[in-house]
Amino acid sequence: MTDMLAIADNDDLALQTVRVDLGARSYDIVIGRNVLDQAGTRIVNLKPGARAAIITDETVGKLHLDRFRQILTDAGVETTALTVPAGEASKRFEMFERLCDDVLAARMERGDIVLALGGGVVGDLSGFVAASVRRGMSFIQVPTTLLAQVDSSVGGKTGINSRHGKNLIGAFYQPDLVLCDTAILDTLPLRDFRAGYAEVAKYGLLGDAEFFAWLEDNWQAIFAGGPERDEAVARSCQAKADVVAEDEQEAGRRALLNLGHTFGHALESAVSYETERLVHGEGVAIGMMLAHEFSHQLDLLPKEDVTRVERHLLDVGLPTRIQDIPGQLPPAETLMDIIAQDKKVSRGNLTFILTRGIGQAFVEKGVDPSLVRDFLSEKLAQ
Amino acid sequence: MTDMLAIADNDDLALQTVRVDLGARSYDIVIGRNVLDQAGTRIVNLKPGARAAIITDETVGKLHLDRFRQILTDAGVETTALTVPAGEASKRFEMFERLCDDVLAARMERGDIVLALGGGVVGDLSGFVAASVRRGMSFIQVPTTLLAQVDSSVGGKTGINSRHGKNLIGAFYQPDLVLCDTAILDTLPLRDFRAGYAEVAKYGLLGDAEFFAWLEDNWQAIFAGGPERDEAVARSCQAKADVVAEDEQEAGRRALLNLGHTFGHALESAVSYETERLVHGEGVAIGMMLAHEFSHQLDLLPKEDVTRVERHLLDVGLPTRIQDIPGQLPPAETLMDIIAQDKKVSRGNLTFILTRGIGQAFVEKGVDPSLVRDFLSEKLAQ
Repeated sequence: MTDMLAIADNDDLALQTVRVDLGARSYDIVIGRNVLDQAGTRIVNLKPGARAAIITDETVGKLHLDRFRQILTDAGVETTALTVPAGEASKRFEMFERLCDDVLAARMERGDIVLALGGGVVGDLSGFVAASVRRGMSFIQVPTTLLAQVDSSVGGKTGINSRHGKNLIGAFYQPDLVLCDTAILDTLPLRDFRAGYAEVAKYGLLGDAEFFAWLEDNWQAIFAGGPERDEAVARSCQAKADVVAEDEQEAGRRALLNLGHTFGHALESAVSYETERLVHGEGVAIGMMLAHEFSHQLDLLPKEDVTRVERHLLDVGLPTRIQDIPGQLPPAETLMDIIAQDKKVSRGNLTFILTRGIGQAFVEKGVDPSLVRDFLSEKLAQ
Repeated sequence: MTDMLAIADNDDLALQTVRVDLGARSYDIVIGRNVLDQAGTRIVNLKPGARAAIITDETVGKLHLDRFRQILTDAGVETTALTVPAGEASKRFEMFERLCDDVLAARMERGDIVLALGGGVVGDLSGFVAASVRRGMSFIQVPTTLLAQVDSSVGGKTGINSRHGKNLIGAFYQPDLVLCDTAILDTLPLRDFRAGYAEVAKYGLLGDAEFFAWLEDNWQAIFAGGPERDEAVARSCQAKADVVAEDEQEAGRRALLNLGHTFGHALESAVSYETERLVHGEGVAIGMMLAHEFSHQLDLLPKEDVTRVERHLLDVGLPTRIQDIPGQLPPAETLMDIIAQDKKVSRGNLTFILTRGIGQAFVEKGVDPSLVRDFLSEKLAQ
């Protein structure tokens, strides 16, 4: 038993903690500028004596790996670093196999830690490795993108892509700790920050009109890195944590988190996940617009709400229309095929997240596919 | 919603049901001669409308696949069959990837079923596929070997091998139903039946002296296929289910199930898992003997108990000594290296299952490795 190390007392550190309440698998998300400086002591306190296999990608590795390993080493945590190429292509079987083998080659035991230092790709891939090596090792996430901080690091979804689609192979596996250093986001390209922001806006749109209004007033400060950024990350994590705690295995309410994602995934797939054309958050932004427009077409939602959503997304610089994606897109039929193979399909019916207003999204099972096809044809023709 | 189909009322079917109690993940193991005839109706009742991807191996497929698919088809269950080569070599990444892809190619959804028809290899591999495709599909096991019926189909351990060792990559994943048809064991080669019997004997040895005594009296009837066989399978499943219900993630008591397995795995690894020389159950039989002898050497166990264990294992035709393994074996040092890399190692200490008598096994953490090495050297020299 190691004595608890004192967490550095630093007035500059104004931290927020979101507790994800999942019984024995509950964990904390600690959010704040420079929380990374505490990573070593926090890990030692949580898992005394454990070693850590840090999985990162080449881009994040160059920026943050040396400093991060030093922080862990200083606290007495022995580390091994495993680096994968940056980008979605790393979420594949071959990389999963290589990482599992490398973690085992480092003689990591069940109580040792797989630590994801990176964005969503690194987190998803590392989480599946952590879930699978020795049928489950400890898992800590240090998300380095806004998208990963507010989305992929909360909720335990891990996995890789298959040639049949994104995230089709994986596990529900909860981390033991998530550290969201909002200062690290200063190094993020603007396009990636915006893409992550699409998910922040999503939490307002799906269930919290007051939060959406707050975002309309405060988005500049969030982009600039003020305390509002921490607040936005914390409220987003809390929103997701609340849904996940209620419905860990995505039987019902958790599907709300897919607002904008059915259309968004289809568009990402339609451009073969070429991030030069479309990154995930941009697909979500366009997908959320489509979900609101489709809901309006179904007479669920007043036109003013659609306009308000579009205005905010345009304000922050996000795309809102299919036509904003550069290059040729496939016809509506092809998009429908992609949607049908999407993992949110249940027994041939289409499940969509629709909305009755800002903050009033709901799960609609059994949407008539022909309505969706007609809607998409119309949008593609605009 | 489909109406419940009537389960065929057949006086020949004297079934036993063992309930594995794991909260929301509880499931039944139904045991008896020709329970397979009810597979279709039971699946329809449990998962109305679900389709099934049957995973089997070439050996079992030749014997049972056509009949089994017919039983499912007759009940209205749509099936796809996926066949892997027979043998441990199929528990590898490449096969895991191929099966995941094939299940997705068959457009299986989350509510559809991965059905394992085969022995432990098929069950372990299929279970990991079921756990991973779409982050968890339904999973049903139809174990066709005695070993799989009493061991690998209970408890939710699934996985594949890595070049660093057996079962090092996988998931804890519970099936929705297990059907143990004891008549199907009539087609099993005697050597395989004996190997499975080693695990049956293990349940007596680890915690139930009365069951061990019953086995000493009834083993011939178990081998011959009488109602005693059903009884032995049911009591073994119940014994394992009790331990698993108490300790699903193998934090403590579940380790008792590894009686004989640390030595056994080391021997299997030492012969490179060449089943011509040693199959798993034979390794367990020799491993159980070694565990009893080692416990005796530590003054934990009277010599008479060691003799009694050996007599019973010899009676049923199982090997009991390292020297029973044909061919050359590596020195004790090499076996120790294998044991150290075994997944039951915790922070450099050796954890062994020792025993104070028939039915009195216990978990001993922190066994001095030099004692084990000396014991193995001695045994190898005999």
